[in-house]
Amino acid sequence: MGDLGIRRATADDLPAIVAMLADDPLGAQRESPDDLAPYLAALDRLEADPHQHLVVAVREDRVIGTLQLTVIPGLSHRGATRAVIEAVRIHADERGGGLGGRLIEWAIDTSRELGCRLVQLTSDKSRVDAHRFYERLGFTASHEGFKLRL
Amino acid sequence: MGDLGIRRATADDLPAIVAMLADDPLGAQRESPDDLAPYLAALDRLEADPHQHLVVAVREDRVIGTLQLTVIPGLSHRGATRAVIEAVRIHADERGGGLGGRLIEWAIDTSRELGCRLVQLTSDKSRVDAHRFYERLGFTASHEGFKLRL
Repeated sequence: MGDLGIRRATADDLPAIVAMLADDPLGAQRESPDDLAPYLAALDRLEADPHQHLVVAVREDRVIGTLQLTVIPGLSHRGATRAVIEAVRIHADERGGGLGGRLIEWAIDTSRELGCRLVQLTSDKSRVDAHRFYERLGFTASHEGFKLRL
Repeated sequence: MGDLGIRRATADDLPAIVAMLADDPLGAQRESPDDLAPYLAALDRLEADPHQHLVVAVREDRVIGTLQLTVIPGLSHRGATRAVIEAVRIHADERGGGLGGRLIEWAIDTSRELGCRLVQLTSDKSRVDAHRFYERLGFTASHEGFKLRL
């Protein structure tokens, strides 16, 4: 199997990341893996913001997972800084092997190191398996997640 | 009634903001309005991050509402930047008068001006009235909101 590494994503990883974003019942409708230009522009924005941590999981030089961690300061909870996890994806060949748990644990550990007192994420209500997964990792589905497209 | 203004929060606004955070069934358990030091430290973190927009709603020099808007770049949705709304509070004397809608509309308009393609927020499942409010404003409760305390 080889060792798993988790490291910051670079432009060279974009094709693999976007392929994972698109290889998903929801992502297939909204991603454009044949046109990477908007993703390159977004990567520039991510790299310009020190509170963004876009990472890939890599085994034997192959990108097999990704997630984005964002650190958000705030006043509530006595001035608690929180972390938000977005865009968790595992390559189809690697699902069910514990990689998702490893990535989320990396995000939790990193959030703690960065002084966060809360980690949060939202998951589409259709992703029932993902909900069980997050609950096993200690998360509580205590909130409704509202979205509005502009 | 006087005109409503929405402007960036300053340290002078902290006592009023923290009083609103604490004047709430959930906030009463976790805020410390008698000790502003952790909130001042958090305000420094907010002011140091150009992607944070902590605002107050003011009428006749009185702070009557607050919210925090965070701009998060990302790869998914073809490189869409999103906005996250946190810590929406309306002074108890001002609830039911449309101020919450004005604040959220400010957040939506600002998100659009900042190039966001999505606005999102989570709301504790016990805040049933808030859920109806967000749905009236066009939000969809499409996601489960997971939290983990560290």
